[in-house]
Amino acid sequence: MSAPIIAREATGEPTATADVTRIDPIAGATRPLRDLLAVEEPLEIHLNGWRWLATMRTPGHDADLVLGMLASEGVIASAAEVEQIVFRRHPEEPEFANLAAVHLAPAVEDLRARLARNQTLATASCGLCGASSVAALLRRRPPLASGPTVDAAVLAALPARLAERQDVFRATGGLHGAALCGLDGACAAVREDVGRHNAVDKVLGWCLRAARAPAAPILLVSGRASFEIVQKALVAGIPIVAAVSAPSSLAVRLAEDAGMTLAGFVREGGFNVYAGAERITTRAGALARRVGPAREHA
Amino acid sequence: MSAPIIAREATGEPTATADVTRIDPIAGATRPLRDLLAVEEPLEIHLNGWRWLATMRTPGHDADLVLGMLASEGVIASAAEVEQIVFRRHPEEPEFANLAAVHLAPAVEDLRARLARNQTLATASCGLCGASSVAALLRRRPPLASGPTVDAAVLAALPARLAERQDVFRATGGLHGAALCGLDGACAAVREDVGRHNAVDKVLGWCLRAARAPAAPILLVSGRASFEIVQKALVAGIPIVAAVSAPSSLAVRLAEDAGMTLAGFVREGGFNVYAGAERITTRAGALARRVGPAREHA
Repeated sequence: MSAPIIAREATGEPTATADVTRIDPIAGATRPLRDLLAVEEPLEIHLNGWRWLATMRTPGHDADLVLGMLASEGVIASAAEVEQIVFRRHPEEPEFANLAAVHLAPAVEDLRARLARNQTLATASCGLCGASSVAALLRRRPPLASGPTVDAAVLAALPARLAERQDVFRATGGLHGAALCGLDGACAAVREDVGRHNAVDKVLGWCLRAARAPAAPILLVSGRASFEIVQKALVAGIPIVAAVSAPSSLAVRLAEDAGMTLAGFVREGGFNVYAGAERITTRAGALARRVGPAREHA
Repeated sequence: MSAPIIAREATGEPTATADVTRIDPIAGATRPLRDLLAVEEPLEIHLNGWRWLATMRTPGHDADLVLGMLASEGVIASAAEVEQIVFRRHPEEPEFANLAAVHLAPAVEDLRARLARNQTLATASCGLCGASSVAALLRRRPPLASGPTVDAAVLAALPARLAERQDVFRATGGLHGAALCGLDGACAAVREDVGRHNAVDKVLGWCLRAARAPAAPILLVSGRASFEIVQKALVAGIPIVAAVSAPSSLAVRLAEDAGMTLAGFVREGGFNVYAGAERITTRAGALARRVGPAREHA
């Protein structure tokens, strides 16, 4: 499988400085402060000369983002379908190279047909209720096969590993993170973005670009798990989704019906498994089953 | 100004129970747990019989959401343009009333023209770089006039007031919150949703529905402030945006150019002002100016 040629101009830095006023109302004090912001810039994506879409994103790993979005939205099935991605500055707007011109092997007419067929993926809702959205998605992407299993202690330790590598978040406090991790807890790729979905698409694009198949089996996200996050994992064939915060009802339903594992509130002290608990193992002999209190968000 | 007639069927509860497995890897213990999830369900919006869009959202305050989205996207200028909103169940999908049929005073052809004119608002990016996105928006929505001012201590106390009233977040840990607040710190409306933008649209829709003009001057959001959040406030004429977490670079740029006030990392101990510091007052006589360390996210 050949990787696309990526011709890039600098698409900008992920952070920018800002002069802010720090206010402490208790002391009644104000002082000037230099702060670092997460950059948010539009990226316009053209497919074979046709304007496909524009999205806000944080510059950095833009080729990964484009590839991940193309795959998530059903435009491409593999990176081999992308011949070239060229990042351009618009002559009238030379500040950043915010135009990604993608040259694809399929012709544009074929692409439009694919997009129409897959538009239910793009809109993240395929019917008038969640159940029919899940069912429509599973008609296109069948449920995943069973396995592999991951040790609970490995899963619980993943957020700390992600946090260590979220460089821009540490600097700005303003970015979502996503990571693709192995069963040994190693994070193969970590990506950040102002958009939750973009961070996931950057990770999936990295995976595609390097033709890494099968993908590492765990997708970790720094925030909540929505339907669309679980959907992206399903489309990429990733069986285990771990979220630092809460999942939504529809994320749980999709994970259940798609044969996926969904863990939420993943922290060092433990986590909740909402679907696919059979993929989680605990130390043999130490397993205890008892009925606990009504609920817990550790 | 007349408010629209809203005919509603139950659109579903904002929370759902789930049976989960709680795993404590240190003790090697697992136990069953009943958890509460934030519900995520699609809502399809029709305008005069024409399918406009579908979005994922948390049920509750759906009429506010629809009105806020219509206003944010430039479809309506006031609630008086909405004659009726009827929430329907689809005959084949009777589980939830997830179809909002909106009857508008303007004809559909007029609407399409308006949407085309305003599509730059909808896509949240109007050009190939952030600067041109801001400029294009300000050609349509001129900068806001100066004033009013808010006391720093009032602003710093707002997140605690929002948290008190985020009922579904407390139950699930899975929802964004938005509030419209007065200069005295009273939260006139608090809304929650799995989508950050939806929570803001629900607040703006509440404001429109009750024909409350001028709107309360502070929009508070429980998370980060992106370009689109500041844009929604600008379109609604709300001059002060306060975010519990970080703003993005483009949110700051828009706030600066639009004459708005943008505060980030708003917590009890203080906050950072990224634009429009002249709208923030501290106790007279207690104001101290000194140069502090490089940066701080208290």
